[in-house]
Amino acid sequence: MNTLKSIKLTTVAFVSVLGLSLPTFAADPLPSWNETTSKKAITAFVEKVTKAGGADFVPLAERIAVFDNDGTLWSEQPMYFQAFFIFDRIKTLAPKHPEWKTKEPFASVLKGDVKAALAGGEHALIEMAMATHAGTTTEEFNKIVADWLTTAKHPKTGKLYTEMVFQPMLEVLTYLRANGFKTYIVSGGGIEFMRPWTERVYGIPPEQVIGSSIKTKYEVRDGKPVLARLPELNFIDDKDGKPVGINQHIGRRPIMAFGNSDGDFQMIEWTTAGKGARFGLFVHHTDAKREWAYDRESHIGRLNKGLDEAKKKGWTVVDMKSDWNRIYPVTPKK
Amino acid sequence: MNTLKSIKLTTVAFVSVLGLSLPTFAADPLPSWNETTSKKAITAFVEKVTKAGGADFVPLAERIAVFDNDGTLWSEQPMYFQAFFIFDRIKTLAPKHPEWKTKEPFASVLKGDVKAALAGGEHALIEMAMATHAGTTTEEFNKIVADWLTTAKHPKTGKLYTEMVFQPMLEVLTYLRANGFKTYIVSGGGIEFMRPWTERVYGIPPEQVIGSSIKTKYEVRDGKPVLARLPELNFIDDKDGKPVGINQHIGRRPIMAFGNSDGDFQMIEWTTAGKGARFGLFVHHTDAKREWAYDRESHIGRLNKGLDEAKKKGWTVVDMKSDWNRIYPVTPKK
Repeated sequence: MNTLKSIKLTTVAFVSVLGLSLPTFAADPLPSWNETTSKKAITAFVEKVTKAGGADFVPLAERIAVFDNDGTLWSEQPMYFQAFFIFDRIKTLAPKHPEWKTKEPFASVLKGDVKAALAGGEHALIEMAMATHAGTTTEEFNKIVADWLTTAKHPKTGKLYTEMVFQPMLEVLTYLRANGFKTYIVSGGGIEFMRPWTERVYGIPPEQVIGSSIKTKYEVRDGKPVLARLPELNFIDDKDGKPVGINQHIGRRPIMAFGNSDGDFQMIEWTTAGKGARFGLFVHHTDAKREWAYDRESHIGRLNKGLDEAKKKGWTVVDMKSDWNRIYPVTPKK
Repeated sequence: MNTLKSIKLTTVAFVSVLGLSLPTFAADPLPSWNETTSKKAITAFVEKVTKAGGADFVPLAERIAVFDNDGTLWSEQPMYFQAFFIFDRIKTLAPKHPEWKTKEPFASVLKGDVKAALAGGEHALIEMAMATHAGTTTEEFNKIVADWLTTAKHPKTGKLYTEMVFQPMLEVLTYLRANGFKTYIVSGGGIEFMRPWTERVYGIPPEQVIGSSIKTKYEVRDGKPVLARLPELNFIDDKDGKPVGINQHIGRRPIMAFGNSDGDFQMIEWTTAGKGARFGLFVHHTDAKREWAYDRESHIGRLNKGLDEAKKKGWTVVDMKSDWNRIYPVTPKK
């Protein structure tokens, strides 16, 4: 044990005895980040935009930070977690749809053959998404998602999906908010698939979640107004859709953007092209042991153009293996 | 002078001498509201949902209040102020469009014949909106609107349009925010027509403005990313579109809704149908002398079904003439 650590531990013990908390300025806000250039890039940026009177100072109202979700705030392998939800939902709904026994891609899902189910590409995926995401009211769907998350487990890790969020990124979210930032999710995933749990897990309220959506229709059923979810795409919040979604929801350009794939490229490009101090970051999945390692050739979360451009544009690329000393929370949020 | 007033004035004088401010609880948060049932309904609701431990207590995160804009936060006669913008914009753009001299509805606008210009109904209005709202980037459009507002004057009052906001409603906005509410605009007007000025005038930031919109497209022009505004409708935030827009942007049901026309009916219906304490309010334009008087038969801001249903459902109806002792701010925000 080195001297500094020893002093710190003694202080903690002493303060604990007194029943006091350590003042926040004494604590490292990003303890799961190793002391590498990535961590320094984040803290240096936040320090300069929050320094009153500094050349790079940004007023509170303009401190907007946007985060992709899949692969940036939680894992996304071997497929998007929302796809697991879709497959589970097809199994749950199957008794009401006897025709699915012989109808693809549903038949393959019911036989447990994920690969065959996905063989139909985007068309098949959208068909399954509509069959499982529409046909309820918004409030019913909210409950279905919330319930699923309390029991469904990831096939490889055995964890709840909400336990597979990245501890280092939770720390970034908290650190930014403590510095006056508004934190937003900007995801290709379904907006109403995320909203039931982002506040509890990430501290991000539903009004700060932007995502893909299907259309809804206002109806009064038995005297009670509801929003019915329709099997019709409304908006795809991916690639060049991300700046469009950000503009539609926020109406101003963020100053920080965090992603992990080429689907986030335009979001980071748009964010960092604004005037004044700007920050872009890709999480590079390099840790096959603790999480997954994939980039240029991956079908999920491909990071190819982004890796090349990040160097030229001065964006930070997190090397998960060497930059993060922890991947998932020790005391997970369920 | 009655005794209470005398004591208040003495206190103010005494405190002023000392160079102190009066504590906020001493001030009436709604001084432009007369002491009628409307004012009491607002303050009684806010008191009960903010009373810790009370039966109707609502946590901070769920204190969402939504406000229509035209006719609720500012005037809307003799036509929506955005229509004046459209007409002025047509005149500005005319030199680039020689064909407008003979093409309706543009020809009538250029001759100053508003009635003839609007004779083509909704189709003509949308055509003019597209011609004047598309074809720029989002940032260019923002500047065009902001510049217009600094010089354009209302034909009847001679005021800047931003001077025609309702002082009593500004007080409600401030009062609600002081009680932990998030205040949103939910308007049939253009989202990007409102965002350039709502923060300055209402204290409502762009991310809390919901409105009608046209589509935008992400493009990189000369190495610089922009969002190009397209002549294509994206969303109409009116009538049954208002609950849809609220759900899309906020993702939870408000607990207070303020409107003035049947276009706000579904927004108030949706808001007040939720569980727990709820509040709905219509501003009834009854003051032909200080503002305008119109309701069931008006082409702009028709309030017909709403007037009937408000009584049945216990929604507050503001009688502008008797409930408000002031219409516009004395020291207007420009």
